[in-house]
Amino acid sequence: MIAKTPKPPYYAVIFTSNRTEGDLGYSEMAVEMEKLVEKQPGFLGFESARTEVGITVSYWQDLESIRNWKENEAHAIAREKGRKTWYQNYKVRIARVEHDYGFERENLKSQ
Amino acid sequence: MIAKTPKPPYYAVIFTSNRTEGDLGYSEMAVEMEKLVEKQPGFLGFESARTEVGITVSYWQDLESIRNWKENEAHAIAREKGRKTWYQNYKVRIARVEHDYGFERENLKSQ
Repeated sequence: MIAKTPKPPYYAVIFTSNRTEGDLGYSEMAVEMEKLVEKQPGFLGFESARTEVGITVSYWQDLESIRNWKENEAHAIAREKGRKTWYQNYKVRIARVEHDYGFERENLKSQ
Repeated sequence: MIAKTPKPPYYAVIFTSNRTEGDLGYSEMAVEMEKLVEKQPGFLGFESARTEVGITVSYWQDLESIRNWKENEAHAIAREKGRKTWYQNYKVRIARVEHDYGFERENLKSQ
Protein backbone atom coordinates (compact mmCIF):
# COMPACT_ATOMS: atom_id res chain seq x y z
CA MET A 1 0.00 0.00 0.00
CA ILE A 2 1.10 3.51 -0.81
CA ALA A 3 0.56 5.76 2.22
CA LYS A 4 -2.12 8.44 1.88
CA THR A 5 -0.23 11.48 3.05
CA PRO A 6 -1.41 15.11 3.23
CA LYS A 7 -0.07 18.03 1.22
CA PRO A 8 3.63 18.69 2.05
CA PRO A 9 5.45 19.73 4.11
CA TYR A 10 5.54 16.68 6.37
CA TYR A 11 8.33 14.38 7.54
CA ALA A 12 9.62 10.97 6.45
CA VAL A 13 11.73 8.56 8.49
CA ILE A 14 13.56 6.27 6.06
CA PHE A 15 14.70 3.09 7.84
CA THR A 16 16.94 0.84 5.71
CA SER A 17 18.15 -2.43 7.22
CA ASN A 18 19.76 -5.81 6.72
CA ARG A 19 18.33 -8.59 8.90
CA THR A 20 20.10 -11.41 10.71
CA GLU A 21 19.13 -15.03 9.84
CA GLY A 22 15.83 -16.45 11.18
CA ASP A 23 12.73 -14.78 12.53
CA LEU A 24 13.67 -14.82 16.26
CA GLY A 25 10.46 -13.07 17.29
CA TYR A 26 10.80 -10.30 14.70
CA SER A 27 7.42 -10.80 12.98
CA GLU A 28 5.51 -10.73 16.25
CA MET A 29 7.23 -7.49 17.29
CA ALA A 30 6.58 -5.96 13.85
CA VAL A 31 2.83 -6.59 14.17
CA GLU A 32 2.83 -5.12 17.69
CA MET A 33 4.79 -2.02 16.63
CA GLU A 34 2.43 -1.49 13.69
CA LYS A 35 -0.55 -1.44 16.05
CA LEU A 36 1.21 0.93 18.44
CA VAL A 37 2.52 3.40 15.85
CA GLU A 38 -0.95 3.86 14.38
CA LYS A 39 -2.07 5.32 17.70
CA GLN A 40 0.75 7.86 17.82
CA PRO A 41 -0.25 11.53 17.44
CA GLY A 42 1.16 12.95 14.23
CA PHE A 43 1.60 9.55 12.52
CA LEU A 44 0.52 9.80 8.87
CA GLY A 45 1.20 6.30 7.50
CA PHE A 46 4.00 3.99 6.40
CA GLU A 47 5.28 1.88 3.51
CA SER A 48 7.45 -1.21 3.84
CA ALA A 49 9.23 -3.66 1.51
CA ARG A 50 12.10 -6.13 1.74
CA THR A 51 14.08 -7.87 -1.01
CA GLU A 52 17.59 -8.22 0.31
CA VAL A 53 17.63 -4.87 2.02
CA GLY A 54 14.49 -3.81 3.87
CA ILE A 55 13.08 -0.30 3.54
CA THR A 56 10.39 1.09 5.82
CA VAL A 57 9.35 4.70 5.37
CA SER A 58 7.06 6.20 8.01
CA TYR A 59 5.46 9.60 7.55
CA TRP A 60 4.91 12.15 10.30
CA GLN A 61 3.32 15.54 10.80
CA ASP A 62 6.38 17.08 12.45
CA LEU A 63 9.68 16.38 14.22
CA GLU A 64 8.04 16.41 17.64
CA SER A 65 5.79 13.46 16.66
CA ILE A 66 8.89 11.53 15.53
CA ARG A 67 10.62 12.30 18.83
CA ASN A 68 7.60 11.17 20.86
CA TRP A 69 7.50 7.85 19.00
CA LYS A 70 11.23 7.38 19.61
CA GLU A 71 10.57 7.87 23.33
CA ASN A 72 7.69 5.35 23.45
CA GLU A 73 8.83 2.67 25.91
CA ALA A 74 7.70 -0.43 23.98
CA HIS A 75 9.32 1.02 20.85
CA ALA A 76 12.58 1.69 22.71
CA ILE A 77 12.62 -1.93 23.95
CA ALA A 78 11.98 -3.18 20.38
CA ARG A 79 14.84 -1.05 19.04
CA GLU A 80 17.19 -2.41 21.70
CA LYS A 81 16.18 -5.97 20.76
CA GLY A 82 16.75 -5.01 17.11
CA ARG A 83 20.36 -4.10 17.81
CA LYS A 84 20.90 -7.25 19.89
CA THR A 85 19.09 -9.75 17.66
CA TRP A 86 17.34 -8.78 14.43
CA TYR A 87 19.61 -6.44 12.48
CA GLN A 88 23.05 -6.81 10.97
CA ASN A 89 23.05 -3.11 10.28
CA TYR A 90 20.66 -0.27 9.62
CA LYS A 91 20.48 3.38 8.75
CA VAL A 92 17.85 5.91 9.80
CA ARG A 93 17.33 9.10 7.81
CA ILE A 94 14.99 11.86 8.91
CA ALA A 95 13.82 14.00 6.03
CA ARG A 96 11.40 16.85 5.39
CA VAL A 97 9.12 16.07 2.42
CA GLU A 98 8.94 19.28 0.40
CA HIS A 99 7.12 18.15 -2.73
CA ASP A 100 5.16 15.12 -3.90
CA TYR A 101 3.16 13.90 -6.89
CA GLY A 102 1.61 10.68 -8.06
CA PHE A 103 0.16 8.61 -10.85
CA GLU A 104 -2.84 6.30 -10.95
CA ARG A 105 -3.77 4.13 -13.93
CA GLU A 106 -7.08 5.23 -15.44
CA ASN A 107 -8.49 1.72 -15.83
CA LEU A 108 -8.27 1.18 -12.06
CA LYS A 109 -11.25 3.47 -11.82
CA SER A 110 -13.21 2.64 -14.98
CA GLN A 111 -13.11 -1.17 -14.83
CA MET B 1 22.81 -2.58 0.12
CA ILE B 2 22.45 0.47 2.33
CA ALA B 3 23.60 3.56 0.41
CA LYS B 4 26.77 5.25 1.65
CA THR B 5 25.61 8.83 1.88
CA PRO B 6 27.55 11.89 3.09
CA LYS B 7 26.79 13.98 6.17
CA PRO B 8 23.35 15.69 5.83
CA PRO B 9 21.88 17.81 4.44
CA TYR B 10 21.24 16.01 1.16
CA TYR B 11 18.07 15.02 -0.70
CA ALA B 12 16.05 11.80 -1.00
CA VAL B 13 13.58 10.89 -3.75
CA ILE B 14 11.18 8.29 -2.33
CA PHE B 15 9.49 6.40 -5.17
CA THR B 16 6.74 4.01 -4.01
CA SER B 17 4.92 1.95 -6.63
CA ASN B 18 2.60 -0.92 -7.44
CA ARG B 19 3.51 -2.86 -10.59
CA THR B 20 1.25 -4.28 -13.28
CA GLU B 21 1.40 -8.07 -13.97
CA GLY B 22 4.35 -9.50 -15.91
CA ASP B 23 7.83 -8.14 -16.63
CA LEU B 24 7.06 -6.50 -20.02
CA GLY B 25 10.62 -5.22 -20.41
CA TYR B 26 10.76 -3.69 -16.93
CA SER B 27 13.88 -5.54 -15.70
CA GLU B 28 15.90 -4.58 -18.75
CA MET B 29 14.95 -0.92 -18.35
CA ALA B 30 15.76 -1.03 -14.62
CA VAL B 31 19.31 -2.27 -15.32
CA GLU B 32 19.76 0.42 -17.97
CA MET B 33 18.46 3.20 -15.68
CA GLU B 34 20.74 2.02 -12.88
CA LYS B 35 23.78 2.35 -15.16
CA LEU B 36 22.65 5.79 -16.34
CA VAL B 37 21.80 7.26 -12.94
CA GLU B 38 25.21 6.35 -11.55
CA LYS B 39 26.78 8.71 -14.09
CA GLN B 40 24.55 11.64 -13.06
CA PRO B 41 26.30 14.55 -11.31
CA GLY B 42 25.08 14.84 -7.72
CA PHE B 43 23.84 11.24 -7.49
CA LEU B 44 24.79 9.80 -4.09
CA GLY B 45 23.33 6.28 -4.18
CA PHE B 46 20.07 4.35 -3.97
CA GLU B 47 18.24 1.60 -2.10
CA SER B 48 15.48 -0.58 -3.52
CA ALA B 49 13.12 -3.31 -2.28
CA ARG B 50 9.80 -4.80 -3.35
CA THR B 51 7.39 -7.03 -1.43
CA GLU B 52 3.94 -6.08 -2.63
CA VAL B 53 4.67 -2.40 -2.85
CA GLY B 54 8.05 -1.39 -4.27
CA ILE B 55 10.16 1.33 -2.65
CA THR B 56 13.18 2.89 -4.31
CA VAL B 57 14.94 5.72 -2.51
CA SER B 58 17.60 7.61 -4.44
CA TYR B 59 19.87 10.13 -2.75
CA TRP B 60 21.08 13.39 -4.27
CA GLN B 61 23.36 16.28 -3.46
CA ASP B 62 20.77 18.95 -4.23
CA LEU B 63 17.48 19.73 -5.99
CA GLU B 64 19.25 20.75 -9.19
CA SER B 65 20.77 17.26 -9.55
CA ILE B 66 17.29 15.75 -9.13
CA ARG B 67 15.90 18.10 -11.79
CA ASN B 68 18.71 17.26 -14.23
CA TRP B 69 18.02 13.54 -13.85
CA LYS B 70 14.32 14.15 -14.43
CA GLU B 71 15.22 15.92 -17.67
CA ASN B 72 17.50 13.10 -18.90
CA GLU B 73 15.93 11.93 -22.17
CA ALA B 74 16.28 8.16 -21.68
CA HIS B 75 14.88 8.55 -18.17
CA ALA B 76 11.92 10.57 -19.45
CA ILE B 77 11.15 7.84 -22.02
CA ALA B 78 11.37 5.17 -19.28
CA ARG B 79 8.95 7.16 -17.06
CA GLU B 80 6.50 7.50 -19.95
CA LYS B 81 6.69 3.71 -20.53
CA GLY B 82 6.17 3.25 -16.79
CA ARG B 83 2.87 5.13 -16.90
CA LYS B 84 1.78 3.24 -20.05
CA THR B 85 2.91 -0.26 -19.07
CA TRP B 86 4.68 -1.05 -15.80
CA TYR B 87 2.88 0.76 -12.99
CA GLN B 88 -0.64 0.56 -11.59
CA ASN B 89 0.12 3.60 -9.50
CA TYR B 90 3.03 5.37 -7.86
CA LYS B 91 3.95 8.25 -5.63
CA VAL B 92 7.11 10.34 -5.70
CA ARG B 93 8.20 12.30 -2.64
CA ILE B 94 11.11 14.71 -2.66
CA ALA B 95 12.57 15.23 0.79
CA ARG B 96 15.51 17.00 2.40
CA VAL B 97 17.45 14.66 4.70
CA GLU B 98 18.21 16.68 7.81
CA HIS B 99 19.61 14.05 10.15
CA ASP B 100 20.84 10.47 9.95
CA TYR B 101 22.40 7.77 12.12
CA GLY B 102 23.16 4.09 11.84
CA PHE B 103 24.03 0.83 13.52
CA GLU B 104 26.46 -1.90 12.54
CA ARG B 105 26.77 -5.23 14.36
CA GLU B 106 30.18 -5.59 16.03
CA ASN B 107 30.76 -9.18 14.90
CA LEU B 108 30.65 -8.11 11.26
CA LYS B 109 34.06 -6.58 11.85
CA SER B 110 35.60 -9.01 14.32
CA GLN B 111 34.77 -12.29 12.57
